[in-house]
Amino acid sequence: MHSFSLLPAASYEYAHIQKVSGDGPPVPATDLLAAEEPLEIRLGFGPEDQRQHRSLAITMRTPGHDEELAAGFLLSEGIIRSKADLLGIRPCPDVTKPEEAGNVVRAELAAHVAIDFDSLARHFYTSSSCGVCGKTSIAAVQGAACPALPRTGPHLAYEVVHQLPDKLRAAQAGFEQTGGQHAAALFTPAGELLLLREDVGRHNALDKLIGAALLAEWLPLHQHVLLVSGRASFELVQKAAAAGIAVLAAVGAPSSLAVQAAETFGLTVLGFVRHGRYNIYSHPWRVQ
Amino acid sequence: MHSFSLLPAASYEYAHIQKVSGDGPPVPATDLLAAEEPLEIRLGFGPEDQRQHRSLAITMRTPGHDEELAAGFLLSEGIIRSKADLLGIRPCPDVTKPEEAGNVVRAELAAHVAIDFDSLARHFYTSSSCGVCGKTSIAAVQGAACPALPRTGPHLAYEVVHQLPDKLRAAQAGFEQTGGQHAAALFTPAGELLLLREDVGRHNALDKLIGAALLAEWLPLHQHVLLVSGRASFELVQKAAAAGIAVLAAVGAPSSLAVQAAETFGLTVLGFVRHGRYNIYSHPWRVQ
Repeated sequence: MHSFSLLPAASYEYAHIQKVSGDGPPVPATDLLAAEEPLEIRLGFGPEDQRQHRSLAITMRTPGHDEELAAGFLLSEGIIRSKADLLGIRPCPDVTKPEEAGNVVRAELAAHVAIDFDSLARHFYTSSSCGVCGKTSIAAVQGAACPALPRTGPHLAYEVVHQLPDKLRAAQAGFEQTGGQHAAALFTPAGELLLLREDVGRHNALDKLIGAALLAEWLPLHQHVLLVSGRASFELVQKAAAAGIAVLAAVGAPSSLAVQAAETFGLTVLGFVRHGRYNIYSHPWRVQ
Repeated sequence: MHSFSLLPAASYEYAHIQKVSGDGPPVPATDLLAAEEPLEIRLGFGPEDQRQHRSLAITMRTPGHDEELAAGFLLSEGIIRSKADLLGIRPCPDVTKPEEAGNVVRAELAAHVAIDFDSLARHFYTSSSCGVCGKTSIAAVQGAACPALPRTGPHLAYEVVHQLPDKLRAAQAGFEQTGGQHAAALFTPAGELLLLREDVGRHNALDKLIGAALLAEWLPLHQHVLLVSGRASFELVQKAAAAGIAVLAAVGAPSSLAVQAAETFGLTVLGFVRHGRYNIYSHPWRVQ
């Protein structure tokens, strides 16, 4: 059993600043900044007697819950499908410099996991033969990493949705301290907060949340509701769908492609969830 | 002379939604969504008689000002240093499907521009031998794409800074319509708005702004002030420094690595610029 915290780790740095207010002179002060550092994700793969290792990606993230971030990234990129595809994830022991310690994790894939580095490279750095447009972006994701969502539940009561932002905010330690972190939170359909992750990057906050759920063997998250503190882009819809999440609520606005992808995947998108109001952009039948 | 608009293109899509307010029943409505579509940036390079073409990157962006986005991306990635490195950027004529039209641009590099695809690939998808930590991230950027900033001006009056967010907001057509776009705006030290770009992605908004300035031959932007509508991350500081911008003001919070990079590059970072207040995080001597 994977043991983990339901709430995010605090990760701040102090800074000496000058505060300016109105016409007054600047006043020296200290401020808490959301920590940002690079994380390198390395992969171990292949049969036991021909094990290979390779660097997969670097992301700028807030340190903390790095194993979860790596697990969520691997799932939402379609490299793994379940916890059974992972032998383990741990801080990389063979870093070359002391500053690297804590900024490199290595995910060991089970021997049965096939990995196509050429196709992954295309994902970042592409020589596309399948077209570049919203429709093909949706199709590529649908084929690769997104299992179909169930056409039933969860069913949400209208008034439960109104409560979610306050519950998120109350638990969002990092934002209160720094004003500089995005959050992703997982709720039950009754509005109970199950899990919260924060990061300077909104993709990372969601990858950490999905990774935590994967390592705890909660996937697929068909009966859960996701709330993100910012806007809903295509990539956030893709990540949510990869984890089986059928309701994505955002405090901010969704993009056009986020809504189109949600329509296709069968995902309910709620936007501008704040101040006792919200909009339903896709699959409204889940809100009752 | 490159002719261009000082204000962003509107790029929206209509959606049929349900509005929920308080305890009332959902009401059908229409809503404007910020458009999001993939853009592929292709490169033409090499001597005239051995011209090669290759795909460089795909980014999810709001359509509009795509040539500027490509130019700004090339500059902030260190692939080009000035307009003289570009023969031109235009919509790619040989797309394979009708949906692609408008989603592919090709930048033709001048024959003298050397390009190291291996090093670029490492940037996205790395096999790092130089360490993974904040310090080496700063050093890598400093060596590659960031010319040193001058240790003089621009000098900003305290009260000018207070005016910037309202000027941005007044000109920010896309946000008013959709609530879903990030903005980057360029001002004179007297607070005159020179240029504004919007996008669903904050990196893209800044790349469009820098690309517009590059194509108009305004670079380096040593005497200008940049305001971004969201938070200031390491990557935004990197992009600003690549364009020679010495003052970066953000409506939101900066991250720890953004402030460390700004200290190193000689860039003044202002954060939480709103409601008649702000914080000065680095090089405060430019604000007087």
